[in-house]
Amino acid sequence: MTEIEKAGAADRVRAMVWRNDHLVLLDQRRLPQEEVYLEVRTATDVAAAIRDMVVRGAPAIGVTAAYGAVLAVAESIATAPAGWRAQAAEKLGELARARPTAVNLRWAVDRLRGVLDRCQGDPVAAVLAEAQAIHAEDIAANRRMGELGADLLEHQEAVLTHCNTGSLATGGFGTALGVIRSAWAGGRLRHVYAAETRPWLQGSRLTAWELQQDGIPATLVADSAAAHLMRTGRVGWVIVGADRIAASGDVANKIGTYSHAVAARHHGLGFMVVAPTSTIDPATATGADINIEERDGSELLAVAGHPVAAPGTAAYNPVFDVTPAELVDVLVTEKGVIRRPDQAKIARLLQG
Amino acid sequence: MTEIEKAGAADRVRAMVWRNDHLVLLDQRRLPQEEVYLEVRTATDVAAAIRDMVVRGAPAIGVTAAYGAVLAVAESIATAPAGWRAQAAEKLGELARARPTAVNLRWAVDRLRGVLDRCQGDPVAAVLAEAQAIHAEDIAANRRMGELGADLLEHQEAVLTHCNTGSLATGGFGTALGVIRSAWAGGRLRHVYAAETRPWLQGSRLTAWELQQDGIPATLVADSAAAHLMRTGRVGWVIVGADRIAASGDVANKIGTYSHAVAARHHGLGFMVVAPTSTIDPATATGADINIEERDGSELLAVAGHPVAAPGTAAYNPVFDVTPAELVDVLVTEKGVIRRPDQAKIARLLQG
Repeated sequence: MTEIEKAGAADRVRAMVWRNDHLVLLDQRRLPQEEVYLEVRTATDVAAAIRDMVVRGAPAIGVTAAYGAVLAVAESIATAPAGWRAQAAEKLGELARARPTAVNLRWAVDRLRGVLDRCQGDPVAAVLAEAQAIHAEDIAANRRMGELGADLLEHQEAVLTHCNTGSLATGGFGTALGVIRSAWAGGRLRHVYAAETRPWLQGSRLTAWELQQDGIPATLVADSAAAHLMRTGRVGWVIVGADRIAASGDVANKIGTYSHAVAARHHGLGFMVVAPTSTIDPATATGADINIEERDGSELLAVAGHPVAAPGTAAYNPVFDVTPAELVDVLVTEKGVIRRPDQAKIARLLQG
Repeated sequence: MTEIEKAGAADRVRAMVWRNDHLVLLDQRRLPQEEVYLEVRTATDVAAAIRDMVVRGAPAIGVTAAYGAVLAVAESIATAPAGWRAQAAEKLGELARARPTAVNLRWAVDRLRGVLDRCQGDPVAAVLAEAQAIHAEDIAANRRMGELGADLLEHQEAVLTHCNTGSLATGGFGTALGVIRSAWAGGRLRHVYAAETRPWLQGSRLTAWELQQDGIPATLVADSAAAHLMRTGRVGWVIVGADRIAASGDVANKIGTYSHAVAARHHGLGFMVVAPTSTIDPATATGADINIEERDGSELLAVAGHPVAAPGTAAYNPVFDVTPAELVDVLVTEKGVIRRPDQAKIARLLQG
C-alpha cells in the first residue's frame, strides 16, 4: 500500500474509491488527525487493510472486498493465465475471511463468485461492473433507509448513536448515520449524542468528525454515560447499525450496542437498527450462531500507543455483541421497516 | 507539592501517609507507569491534589481532607496566631469544596470542625489525632465490609467491578475491592472482570494494578462489554463502591455504575454496593438532590495527552451517575448489610 496525497476538499466523504486499475482507501486509523489515502493494488493488501481496520464498518468492508475481488481476478490472470480461476478463488477466500463477524464481507465476495462463474467475456470488466453495482446499490439503500428511518422520528428528537455508521462505514451516506442525516435535513432531529465507542473510539474519531462536517449538532459521551443520558431524559431514541442480523432478528453489532439496547428498554425508549438486507444472513439461525470477533487485548491496554495498564494485565476484547431481536423496536432496511422483528417478519421481508 | 523518591517496596499500598508534619500522597495520575509520591505541605495544595485527582475515591479524599485540615490549622496558627480560627475555617471550606459529589469529603471536614470547636489543648495535636482516627476507622470499616460482603458470595463466583475502590480509593484495603480481596482470601472468588472506567481509566490504571499486586486473577474489559459479559454467563455479581448514598438509598457512583445496575437487573444478577456509613448522607433526600460533578470534556477528547477527536468536538462528561435504590440488591456497610435498601432500612442502620 502506498500513501498518496490528500484528496482535494471532497463534498462527500468516501471510504473507498476505485481509480482506473486500483483501489484508494481513506486510512480510518489516522482520522481525524490526518486525512491520508492509501493506494491498494493487490487483493492481499485489501484483505490486510480490512483486517487492520484501514477500512471498517460492515457495508464498507463489503464494498471494499468487492473491489478487492477485482484486483484478485486481474492479478491472477496476469500471473497465472492458465490457472487463474483457482488462484482467484483462493484470493477471494482470503478476502472473505479477513474479518469474521460482518456478513456483508462474505455476501459481497459470494456475489462476485457468482459473476465469475457465469462470466462469458472479460472477467475483470465483469467483476468490476459488479463491484461498482454493489457500491452504488449500497449508497442507494442507505439513502432509502435514511428516509424510512427519519420518518419514524417525531419532530426534534435527540438521539444516541454508537460506533460509526456513516459514509466511512458504508459505500457512502451511512446506515444509522444516514437516518440521522435525513432526520436532520428534514427537521426531525435536535441533537446527536455520539458514544465514543471503546476501544477503537469510532465515535470520537469518526462519527464526531462526520457530524461536524455536516454541521449536525453533536456531543460526544463515554459509552458508560448512555444509561445516565436516558435516565435524565436527554435522548428519545437509540439508533445503531449492524454487522450481521440472524434469521431470528438477533443483531450482532459493535460491542456496547447490547448495553444500550438493555438500557433503552429499561427506560421505555426506542431502539432502532438500520442495516441493508445484505446484512441479514438467513444461514445464521440466531445470535448464538454468530462468530463474535475477539481482537487483541492490546487495544484496551494502550491508547494512541501509550500503555494505560500495568505490564502483564490481561484483557478480554470482544468487539461485537448480540442484541436479541426482542429488544429491537424497529429494523430499518432498504426494503422496508419491520417493527419488533422476528423470524417470520424477516423471512417475509427477504422474499418481498 | 514536591516529588519525593519512590518509597521502598510496601507490603500494602497506601494512597496517603502522614509523615511528621506533612502529608505524602501517591500520585494516582501517573499510575501504573510510575509510582511517584508527592509531599504536600499546605491545605491549599491538598485541595488542589483532590481537585486534580492526585488522590481520588470517596473515602480516600475524605481521609486526605482530614489530613489537609491538620495542615490548615497548623499553617493558620503559624501565620495568624491571633485570628487563626477564621483562617483555618476558610481553608477547611476550601477543602470541603474541592470536589462536589463525594460526601465523605464534607463528612471528614465536619468531624474536624467539631474537634476544633471542642478543643481545649493543642489544636494541631487534636486535629491530627482525629484525622488519624478517621484513617484508622476507614481501614477497619473496609475490613469489616470485606468480611460481610464476601459472606454474600457463593463459592467461586466471578464478579464485575467498576472504577477503583481499593486501597487507592480509601484509607486502605478498599470497599468493593475489599470485598473482592476478602472473597479471594476466603476461596469464594474465581475471577474479577475490571471495567476500564472511562474517561479516567481507573479500572485499567488502578484496579488492574492493585489486583495484580495481590495475585487475584483479573481481566480488563471495556465498560461497554459489561452487558455482554452478563449475557454470556461470565459474571454472577456486580460489586461497586459509592460516592454518596442518599437517605432514600439512591447511590451516586462513578459514571457507568448505573448502566451496570440496569444490566444486572435485566439479567437477574446481584448488584452489591459497598460503602462505609460515612458515605450515607441523611441530608440528601434522594438521588435527584445529588450534585453530579461534570468534568472538562477534554478528558474524553484526548487520551494520555493525544487528541482522539477532531478539534471543536463537543463533549459531555458527567463523572458520576445515580443508581436508584430499587436496583441495589445489597448495600454493605461496616454497620451491617441491608438487602433491597430503602429509606426506612437506612434510617434504622444509621441509628443502630
